Amino acid sequence: MSAGVSALDHAAAAAVRLGEIRAGAPRIHCITNLAANVLTANVLLAIGAVPSLTLAQEEVADFVAGSSALLVNLGTLDGERRAAIPLAIEAAARAGRPWVLDPVFANRSPGRLKMAVSLAAAGPAAIRANAAEVAAMAREMGLGGDEGDAAALARATAACVAMTGKRDLVHSGTRAAEIANGHELMDKVTAMGCSLGAVLAAFSAVEPDPFAASVQALLVFGIAGELAGERARGPGSFVPEFLDALYNLDETAIQERAAIA
Amino acid sequence: MSAGVSALDHAAAAAVRLGEIRAGAPRIHCITNLAANVLTANVLLAIGAVPSLTLAQEEVADFVAGSSALLVNLGTLDGERRAAIPLAIEAAARAGRPWVLDPVFANRSPGRLKMAVSLAAAGPAAIRANAAEVAAMAREMGLGGDEGDAAALARATAACVAMTGKRDLVHSGTRAAEIANGHELMDKVTAMGCSLGAVLAAFSAVEPDPFAASVQALLVFGIAGELAGERARGPGSFVPEFLDALYNLDETAIQERAAIA
Amino acid sequence: MSAGVSALDHAAAAAVRLGEIRAGAPRIHCITNLAANVLTANVLLAIGAVPSLTLAQEEVADFVAGSSALLVNLGTLDGERRAAIPLAIEAAARAGRPWVLDPVFANRSPGRLKMAVSLAAAGPAAIRANAAEVAAMAREMGLGGDEGDAAALARATAACVAMTGKRDLVHSGTRAAEIANGHELMDKVTAMGCSLGAVLAAFSAVEPDPFAASVQALLVFGIAGELAGERARGPGSFVPEFLDALYNLDETAIQERAAIA
Repeated sequence: MSAGVSALDHAAAAAVRLGEIRAGAPRIHCITNLAANVLTANVLLAIGAVPSLTLAQEEVADFVAGSSALLVNLGTLDGERRAAIPLAIEAAARAGRPWVLDPVFANRSPGRLKMAVSLAAAGPAAIRANAAEVAAMAREMGLGGDEGDAAALARATAACVAMTGKRDLVHSGTRAAEIANGHELMDKVTAMGCSLGAVLAAFSAVEPDPFAASVQALLVFGIAGELAGERARGPGSFVPEFLDALYNLDETAIQERAAIA
Repeated sequence: MSAGVSALDHAAAAAVRLGEIRAGAPRIHCITNLAANVLTANVLLAIGAVPSLTLAQEEVADFVAGSSALLVNLGTLDGERRAAIPLAIEAAARAGRPWVLDPVFANRSPGRLKMAVSLAAAGPAAIRANAAEVAAMAREMGLGGDEGDAAALARATAACVAMTGKRDLVHSGTRAAEIANGHELMDKVTAMGCSLGAVLAAFSAVEPDPFAASVQALLVFGIAGELAGERARGPGSFVPEFLDALYNLDETAIQERAAIA
Repeated sequence: MSAGVSALDHAAAAAVRLGEIRAGAPRIHCITNLAANVLTANVLLAIGAVPSLTLAQEEVADFVAGSSALLVNLGTLDGERRAAIPLAIEAAARAGRPWVLDPVFANRSPGRLKMAVSLAAAGPAAIRANAAEVAAMAREMGLGGDEGDAAALARATAACVAMTGKRDLVHSGTRAAEIANGHELMDKVTAMGCSLGAVLAAFSAVEPDPFAASVQALLVFGIAGELAGERARGPGSFVPEFLDALYNLDETAIQERAAIA
């Protein structure tokens, strides 16, 4: 499946790229929703990146132009965010920065689905979504068939699709990988998926291949989640444990725990 | 006081309804303030419900129509929230969904008080407020007298009033109960009261009687607060302990600790 | 350097003023950014103050007029915040309340820098900023020279400048102090600096001398950070430890740890 790159290679590369993030402290500009700002910023800081979050039309383009990658998350899509998104994407394209689309709840409202489909066609390096969101987008675009929604969406948009769930599926259109790391408490904390989108953007800042960046981000995020889940007594203690696990994550843990096929 | 239902009955019912929330994962749409979004979402997830938080005028009605209950919290009442509230309430009424009003700071600004009074007359199943907010609303509505502000507000609006404080007072207009669970650290964490409003909405989604739903929500919230307060070393460790306590709360703890009269 | 007041005197005064905050529970109105609201509110509660956060134009002046001090933080400077800031500052001036300016990212966008410089001239009691922000403001104002940017900015604005970094530098224009408390994990948590601005506003509410208030706030904040950093296993566990440390901070710890010159 994973195009000749072994699980160990992916794990080793994840550790190398995480080291590059820690050394280079790339700034990741995040347009994200009002429940995700704090966790997203703290997750980025925990892996060694630097967040910025401004939405203001006067300055969002300047902030994106000076950043290393961009996250566009569609949760809580208010007027300010709607106005900021095209300015941010245009600035990222002009500066040659990769950007990640997270079409939160694209399956729940027709207007949002249209916007998600239109943004997916605007050149994201990767799309982070769950199965329901990917399915809704594929349907809206008239895709589908035997290959599966993630593969179809990846081919139609030329973006790498990182479809998260019990098992994560990464599809570049030509390559695919499945990742089985993570912990059930991750579903009991708001904005965990949103913060994964930012981690994917951070790996895209140091790893030019969006497929590899997606696999690396999912490994690091899922393994930190496993470590945290084993220590936590519930979703409350999970969050500090998760941030500590990201901060302290080393190559040994990544190598030993990477569950990729 | 509590109309023939004993404390043990309320505690048993709280455990049953909590089990129904965990089994059914009702989605609760929350229009809430910018300091409350994250804690509210995490509290809902910890009891087994699912939060949604969108304010956008284009989609708030769709989100409410597909939800099981609605919370309208007046904290940080900006233009976007002012526009979203009537759309959300209308959608809840049309879909027959219960909604909870939390008139935060109704006692601090005249415009806010007028809005709180007008919303209280628009058919909430319950109103979650502290004594100062209830008193300000009763005064503005020309209520009062011997029966007490909570009773008067409940009778005038046909909503159940859950007035929180050192001891919580629940009044339906005809029935009353007092609950003495909780912990002093709950006042040292921002948005705790706001997240209680969301828990009340979640219980309203599975318990058709707003009085019973209010008592159950206050018991579950206050008992989890007690458990967390006993383990915490301050307001920082209180939050993860509280979410863990909500997540792990079982019938035995509810039965043993319910302090209701 | 510190104008005849010894480190022990500053530490003793910090403990006294912290006691006054705990006893008097001053309300601090905060116009702050979307990643800072929750931590700022919880930090204020942990030291015994009471936060309010409303931005709405209809009521921000009322909220400020009834508060004891105001924080104006320029992070995530959207339309609503731009409109609220002059109303809040005018209300603070009219009511004779001290206010603190935090010119977040003034060095990153020209429009923001202009706004920061204009607000610095509008009479803040103190300016909380890092070295890059202070340097950008000094350059924009045509200041500088041998005395250093912080001293120049303090003299030009008549505000006390609290310039934070590895070592914090407080300059009133005539008096200076350096504080070396703190912990490296404080840089790995979003909005820590923003919440320090609110602590400075809280000390300004009880300590009329902005230089003394700045020193006291930096001591309390930095010492709590040290205590938390010694107990934390990473940036995730740091946050609850920090809030607990603020809540439990006593005079002995302040006296023993104050690192001021």
